[in-house]
Amino acid sequence: MRAEIISVGTELLLGQIVNIDTQMISEMLSPLGIDMYYHTTVGDNSERLRNVFRQALERSDIVFTTGGLGPTMDDLTKETIAAEMGLKMVLHEDELAHLETLFTRRGSAMPQNNRKQAMFPEGSMVIPNHNGTAPGVIVEHHDKLVIILPGPPRELRPMMEETVLPFLERISGDNQSVIKSKVLKLCGIGESALEEAIQDLIKEQTNPTIAPLAGSEVTLRITAKAPTWADADRMIEKLESKIQDRIGDFIYGCDEETLESVIGEMLLKKGLSLSVAESCTGGLISARLTNVAGSSQYFERGYVCYSNQSKMDLLNVPESVINQYGAVSEETAAFMAKGSARSSNTDIGISVTGIAGPGGGTKEKPVGLVCFGLFAPGFESTDTQQYSGQRTSIRARATQHGLRIIWEYLKSR
Amino acid sequence: MRAEIISVGTELLLGQIVNIDTQMISEMLSPLGIDMYYHTTVGDNSERLRNVFRQALERSDIVFTTGGLGPTMDDLTKETIAAEMGLKMVLHEDELAHLETLFTRRGSAMPQNNRKQAMFPEGSMVIPNHNGTAPGVIVEHHDKLVIILPGPPRELRPMMEETVLPFLERISGDNQSVIKSKVLKLCGIGESALEEAIQDLIKEQTNPTIAPLAGSEVTLRITAKAPTWADADRMIEKLESKIQDRIGDFIYGCDEETLESVIGEMLLKKGLSLSVAESCTGGLISARLTNVAGSSQYFERGYVCYSNQSKMDLLNVPESVINQYGAVSEETAAFMAKGSARSSNTDIGISVTGIAGPGGGTKEKPVGLVCFGLFAPGFESTDTQQYSGQRTSIRARATQHGLRIIWEYLKSR
Repeated sequence: MRAEIISVGTELLLGQIVNIDTQMISEMLSPLGIDMYYHTTVGDNSERLRNVFRQALERSDIVFTTGGLGPTMDDLTKETIAAEMGLKMVLHEDELAHLETLFTRRGSAMPQNNRKQAMFPEGSMVIPNHNGTAPGVIVEHHDKLVIILPGPPRELRPMMEETVLPFLERISGDNQSVIKSKVLKLCGIGESALEEAIQDLIKEQTNPTIAPLAGSEVTLRITAKAPTWADADRMIEKLESKIQDRIGDFIYGCDEETLESVIGEMLLKKGLSLSVAESCTGGLISARLTNVAGSSQYFERGYVCYSNQSKMDLLNVPESVINQYGAVSEETAAFMAKGSARSSNTDIGISVTGIAGPGGGTKEKPVGLVCFGLFAPGFESTDTQQYSGQRTSIRARATQHGLRIIWEYLKSR
Repeated sequence: MRAEIISVGTELLLGQIVNIDTQMISEMLSPLGIDMYYHTTVGDNSERLRNVFRQALERSDIVFTTGGLGPTMDDLTKETIAAEMGLKMVLHEDELAHLETLFTRRGSAMPQNNRKQAMFPEGSMVIPNHNGTAPGVIVEHHDKLVIILPGPPRELRPMMEETVLPFLERISGDNQSVIKSKVLKLCGIGESALEEAIQDLIKEQTNPTIAPLAGSEVTLRITAKAPTWADADRMIEKLESKIQDRIGDFIYGCDEETLESVIGEMLLKKGLSLSVAESCTGGLISARLTNVAGSSQYFERGYVCYSNQSKMDLLNVPESVINQYGAVSEETAAFMAKGSARSSNTDIGISVTGIAGPGGGTKEKPVGLVCFGLFAPGFESTDTQQYSGQRTSIRARATQHGLRIIWEYLKSR
């Protein structure tokens, strides 16, 4: 079945609010095997809404609408849709009574305006709204399904969960397949290098499909359509093992896992503790690591050593090393990592020192140059990266690389 | 002028990500007097994208697209649009050279796939992308304007600000009135308290208008429509002074200013230096402060003291204080702030210690309890806040409050 969503609201077109409803509905439908083809947003304008709705009804089996169910003149979704479908609007006495009770409980009489919230296209099914005054509607008409929902996400979500999803599951009961996705998370490989490595798999595969996802990290989504969940799992597993054979070295986790949560689990399992010494990332590595609940079990402390003095005081970096090689050098990074581990009495110390810009760059050491160090029992390493872009981006990428260095070390032990 | 936005990406239709781009572009266009009529999302499918684009070109003067500019086979926005407009795709040698340089700097050869990111519809203008490998494009053709942008918001936003908005302002120069906005940034006041304080102004005003903006911070946008920029400035100034009279104490800056950039300027002007001691915020305060270019002039160092041991070692918090009052207490926070300033030899020390959850709470000290300390020449203060919500939200709000404490102190000196 093909579905699409029409969001109604001028506030969306003005960019005053982010469209959460559409993401929410789409995410809920995906596991039901209902294919989403379009999202459209239109203002509180009867003619444009009617045109958009007409087109949707032509090309999709299920049309969702969100918004435009309030009591004001601006709110015209139900009326416009009923007109286009050739359905009369009729009063539901039960809903009217319910609305009046709501207002009485709030200690006020129901304004006349709100009466229209109890009017629905004839022959439709009401979707109760326990968190607001606007009920939703399901209209079944000429093999098409129209599901009309209010705009506020905190009203829409329970209405989807309590009424719409069970309804859709019932009617799609003859649909024999489920859809399941697994997202693989990668680090240390670029999007195009990734694609080159598995290009043939992407092309060959139609079920499961493989798709690289854009974002701040490189990720890969495997989606399988199968008669049962167990079948889908097996299909995903089989394809995943092919992918693992090619680029397994770069896959750090899947689905909800983050690089910092995976590092946390590895540290816990190995019983190792960690401290961080950062200069140009200014606390971001510590912040990422401590965003994981329970990180106090392995994260001992972090040093944000912005000044040379602090690198000497806290990490015992010799002044002569800073003078000879500079604060941004693998030599200084090595001392910082060692100093971090030693002074905090942790197993592992990681360090970052670089030039985040826009100022501070020289010909020899341009903006974006970042050095890293790792100190661990019987192991030391340093590394240099050159990033381009703006301060925020350089800091974010250096943070990601710092975490990757920890992950690679833990993986190899 | 009528505009609409087409978002390209199957991940949007599957509900895997929220469509931020569309909100961002819409919000930016609104002050220019460009009317937004439709938002459409379509998957990575050439035929459907082409149909949607054709319709958009018929009914709008300006068509924006976001997404589908990556190096992979899935990315087909430019090619599809060029085909529909009857334009050839041509290689921009400069962009290719630029891309190759980017990869060389990262220490790798450019994969062959990325070559397509340097191909553009003939006669188009390239929009530089300083935060990614996918440049955007402006195509002017038969009285229509097509603006093609990449999907990641952190790439799209600066491209809009640096290139697209100035371009649109130039071409809409024949328009006889200008629209100017000023965004006031507030801290220490809630959204509803703010609205109550200036409710009458919001209602009375039609030009300039006042609108509270949603987001992670409380902000207020003043928008004036006037014959000249100077007139608009005068109108904004007049209204702003009325607002200042009522809630000036909470306004820390405007437009691009951030709490950390304003703090930075105040520290520079007063010649003061700062150090930070954080526990539950795990480095976020240091990260915010050092995100400001030039922060090394006043930010000396930060301590992320997660363990009790680190609080004693680095900040000289007496073990007896931790034992008697607990690590999360105003007493410990006071010692942390003082220890931070003293051991780093800075003028000001700020501290945060709290329970970010979800574990670690008790009846006396529940999750969300956060204590703050400030130590400065001849001045000491402590403070306790109780936040609700999840770990990430508690950490973010504690970070904001910590910065606010520094700002309030600097303002009062």
